[in-house]
Amino acid sequence: MSAAGKRNLVVALCGGIGGAKLALGLSRVVPGDDLVLVGNTGDDFEHLGLMISPDLDTIMYTLAGLNDPQRGWGRRNETWTFMDALAALGGETWFALGDGDLATHVERTRRRAAGEALSAITADFCRRLGVAARLVPMTDDKVRTRLRTEEGWLDFQDYFVRRRCAPPIQEIAYDGAASARAHPDLLAALRDPRLRTVVICPSNPFLSIGPILAVAGLREAIAHAAAPVVAVSPIIGGRAVKGPTAKMMSELGLEVSAVAVARRYQDLLDGYVLDRVDASEAEKLGIPVTPAHTLMTTLADRETLARRVLASADALAKVSA
Amino acid sequence: MSAAGKRNLVVALCGGIGGAKLALGLSRVVPGDDLVLVGNTGDDFEHLGLMISPDLDTIMYTLAGLNDPQRGWGRRNETWTFMDALAALGGETWFALGDGDLATHVERTRRRAAGEALSAITADFCRRLGVAARLVPMTDDKVRTRLRTEEGWLDFQDYFVRRRCAPPIQEIAYDGAASARAHPDLLAALRDPRLRTVVICPSNPFLSIGPILAVAGLREAIAHAAAPVVAVSPIIGGRAVKGPTAKMMSELGLEVSAVAVARRYQDLLDGYVLDRVDASEAEKLGIPVTPAHTLMTTLADRETLARRVLASADALAKVSA
Repeated sequence: MSAAGKRNLVVALCGGIGGAKLALGLSRVVPGDDLVLVGNTGDDFEHLGLMISPDLDTIMYTLAGLNDPQRGWGRRNETWTFMDALAALGGETWFALGDGDLATHVERTRRRAAGEALSAITADFCRRLGVAARLVPMTDDKVRTRLRTEEGWLDFQDYFVRRRCAPPIQEIAYDGAASARAHPDLLAALRDPRLRTVVICPSNPFLSIGPILAVAGLREAIAHAAAPVVAVSPIIGGRAVKGPTAKMMSELGLEVSAVAVARRYQDLLDGYVLDRVDASEAEKLGIPVTPAHTLMTTLADRETLARRVLASADALAKVSA
Repeated sequence: MSAAGKRNLVVALCGGIGGAKLALGLSRVVPGDDLVLVGNTGDDFEHLGLMISPDLDTIMYTLAGLNDPQRGWGRRNETWTFMDALAALGGETWFALGDGDLATHVERTRRRAAGEALSAITADFCRRLGVAARLVPMTDDKVRTRLRTEEGWLDFQDYFVRRRCAPPIQEIAYDGAASARAHPDLLAALRDPRLRTVVICPSNPFLSIGPILAVAGLREAIAHAAAPVVAVSPIIGGRAVKGPTAKMMSELGLEVSAVAVARRYQDLLDGYVLDRVDASEAEKLGIPVTPAHTLMTTLADRETLARRVLASADALAKVSA
């Protein structure tokens, strides 16, 4: 067995829907708790008195097979009786909460109020739902993504859900990130001699990966990890598969391209996986690039891309070894 | 028009299901906000971080036509996705919360946390759900019914739901009642020259009416009201229609009878409505008694009993006038 053969631990930075697709793929090729998913909590918020962690929940539901593949968010076989009743009582309905989803928020809020850390609750939820991978919030401290727009600073969900990303953005802040403590399990995983690779999933670089990398010490810990760091582009042929990534890049004066996303991570990256349609851009980056089919429509797509990402990382490890 | 004709205001003390049936009947014969329903809050509790007011909600749902007539509690067309999902997460499921019902608790909790009084929230909920009668909590202060059993003191819901009223009771306490302030609207209604009658609904005398009468000053205000006070027996032929009334009376060493219930209110009562099957007991009480069909199976039963109660009160008023 080669030295690389013992390197089984995969750390993946992950936001919501796009990231969760690759996380699911990774979970099918990386056994059990050798997969450590770093969940973004920058878009966590309190709503109706409930503590909501959208990205953690998307990843958890996806890996548990509870996600709704048609709608793209929330749970399958969901009902909406709560929202209907809430509307009749004059409650706020701009953020859709399914009845089953609500259980996650109510129980999380109860346990947080009882003093449990978000990471402990998340780990327990995952165990109960049969998720073998370790899903770890980037921090147990409070970090809140905010966006400066023409209308002033907006909280993330105000921008993302209530305003549907309409106001052009001028600046992004991750309130609390500079003083937040990266979760110790993540720092330990990044120092673990078993570390095979760090994957940056094809999530929104500003809203999903940005907050994770902003947590004090986490970017440095990734940069110093003794394993290849590989990102997967969320941009295919100049467009985002889903969500506001392309719109935001454009508003921030960035080129909307796979290469421009890679440049945001460039101090970290050992390799980059981008779509075949963007392969011609590869030479601009100056790092090894792996073209792949990155549009994950089927479960097989997710698994194939995961294998491709790991293979590219393993190839980088051999070169550097 | 007689003097009695101007006396339109009806105050009714009301617990959960049994009381709500008569409240619905009263709401069909007493127009709009001339009906003031005094809601028991002694069985309010916090559960999963939510503030739950079971009796207020039962009355509100019943008057709004949202109650489930088959199940006898909760909302019609209810779904239970939340409970299923909560169970999967290892949450507490001994208290059944329907998805639609949950909206009431979440929104109430949110508004309470924002500083609104329970009474203001209840009034707004009722308005939005089209309930014309005024539903007023007995107090905005915290009162908690507790029961001493062989197992020690139990909180109300622990006794009522979790233990299904199984442990024999030895004593009942209404924690906080002695220092609670009766809601000012209730004191005003009891002093209002328009007061026609005060009705004590056929609710559990220990768990529903007891807490109301224990609120500082409320029993005295009822006793001093310038209108007849009439109770309706929750016991028919020595049995309770529903719930633990008969069992509790027996455990407390009381005779299980309509008359024994009336004796608990005797300092207040000007008249008593009991079932025709119990008419022979009437003479024992020494107050005017009205036999009636008190088992409210149909909507017509509710309305007929309401008319009968009001007629008995009006007759008493004429005698005293």
